[in-house]
Amino acid sequence: MFYFIGLGLADEKDITVKGLEIVQRAERVYLEAYTAILMVDQEKLEAFYGRPLILADREMVESSSDTILENAANVDIAFLVVGDPFGATTHTDLSLRARALNIPTRTVHNASILTGVSITGLSLYNFGQTTSMVFFTESWRPASFYDRLAENASLGLHSLVLLDIKVKEPDLDALARTGRVKYDPPRFMSCAQCVSQMLEIEESREQGVCKADKLVVGVARVGSENQIVVAGTLGEMRDVELGEPLHSVVLLGTRTYDLEREFLLEFAKNKESFNKAWEEGGYGKA
Amino acid sequence: MFYFIGLGLADEKDITVKGLEIVQRAERVYLEAYTAILMVDQEKLEAFYGRPLILADREMVESSSDTILENAANVDIAFLVVGDPFGATTHTDLSLRARALNIPTRTVHNASILTGVSITGLSLYNFGQTTSMVFFTESWRPASFYDRLAENASLGLHSLVLLDIKVKEPDLDALARTGRVKYDPPRFMSCAQCVSQMLEIEESREQGVCKADKLVVGVARVGSENQIVVAGTLGEMRDVELGEPLHSVVLLGTRTYDLEREFLLEFAKNKESFNKAWEEGGYGKA
Repeated sequence: MFYFIGLGLADEKDITVKGLEIVQRAERVYLEAYTAILMVDQEKLEAFYGRPLILADREMVESSSDTILENAANVDIAFLVVGDPFGATTHTDLSLRARALNIPTRTVHNASILTGVSITGLSLYNFGQTTSMVFFTESWRPASFYDRLAENASLGLHSLVLLDIKVKEPDLDALARTGRVKYDPPRFMSCAQCVSQMLEIEESREQGVCKADKLVVGVARVGSENQIVVAGTLGEMRDVELGEPLHSVVLLGTRTYDLEREFLLEFAKNKESFNKAWEEGGYGKA
Repeated sequence: MFYFIGLGLADEKDITVKGLEIVQRAERVYLEAYTAILMVDQEKLEAFYGRPLILADREMVESSSDTILENAANVDIAFLVVGDPFGATTHTDLSLRARALNIPTRTVHNASILTGVSITGLSLYNFGQTTSMVFFTESWRPASFYDRLAENASLGLHSLVLLDIKVKEPDLDALARTGRVKYDPPRFMSCAQCVSQMLEIEESREQGVCKADKLVVGVARVGSENQIVVAGTLGEMRDVELGEPLHSVVLLGTRTYDLEREFLLEFAKNKESFNKAWEEGGYGKA
């Protein structure tokens, strides 16, 4: 059996009892480590699980799936994914490949940022589609996220924005210079950077979806003891430092309730400007 | 500390290691048992956790929250919720009440049907807002779900529909007859009943959102070993029996990928009519 096992959001103890039992008896245990990370390192996971982990980077999962699936029709193989295994990312390819090889699969679900974001007090019923934000480069500043945000906003719905992470990216300059593959240090997009990219695209699109007085909520390290929630206008949040990764951002929709306002106000960077933006932005007209 | 602890989707082993440790040391442990259920009963949970559980029905949570929160500033109290604690439902009231009483709270996240539905192979990025379907009665046949489905459909997005459950509902006839409170047996809406209510509202609204040839996916017992996924047109799914609860329904949006089609086809009640509905319904025009 090939098991997709969710690890949840924060640390080694977020695995479920069911997931842990499978990890402890599996023949091989892979750790998918390129779409999200926990707040503890591989050594800590290995110590707690009592098993060595095989790090599965994007290249391995995308081009060596048959190695990962090897013999899974006869023995148990565990493939660990941060969050819920098919949550923020999908491993549908791997799942279809297993199906083609007649390997039975099972999923052990776990917490995902898609529902973990409910710590903001925002009703998950009022979220539209989730979108993601990539690191802009000099030549690549994709604005398709803005269309998704605009669609949600047109219905008064909130948008969860998941932020880019870069792990084990080849350093192309070094490769060109030395002919050897070197990897950049891992990078995780901050709430502030996401907000500034939203404001930048607003300047060219001018539809008002990401105007500086729109309300957003930034969350960091959801599910850990030092998680943080900060609410404010896009203009304010451009400079707010939320610390260690992972961060996510919610662009608020107008379909909001008094209870949500009350809950969020506690997290406001500035209560006065939060209330002003709420009143003038037409929030709460659910 | 007052802990909101998610129990996940299926059975006693879906609790996280972190959650289990808190349950085992908490002074009192409540089990919220009116918004969703696991596939095992209270006795099995108590045996596995090694702790007695206090059943918290809707009345208790809504009108006796101070009893639940009692002394939580000094000792650990655990409040167990199926799924992710603030997922399909919200316990924001209880959370705000704790805040008012200066009781610190923490949430231990877990799997929710909102991401568990990814077992269908549908990308969670293409889901719009979640909606819910209540049991129609002779005099109460609320159609607001149709507006939510229409909004999502207008953007080509999928809709997850969460189905009503009725536990510990007072039998009003018996109360009127005998003056004593008697409770109806628990009821869980089936996929088939949800589909027939969708078709019924389509008849009066005629916007085409829930026409008989639209594609839906029914899921049952997600996260358990006998979970099931069946895809088909609304017309076909009206008669499909998915067995024991809980069921959920996804109304497919047109913003779908070839990979999703390939994945879903395996679950089709009838591959031929699935393909016909897909082609003629304009699905896959992502």
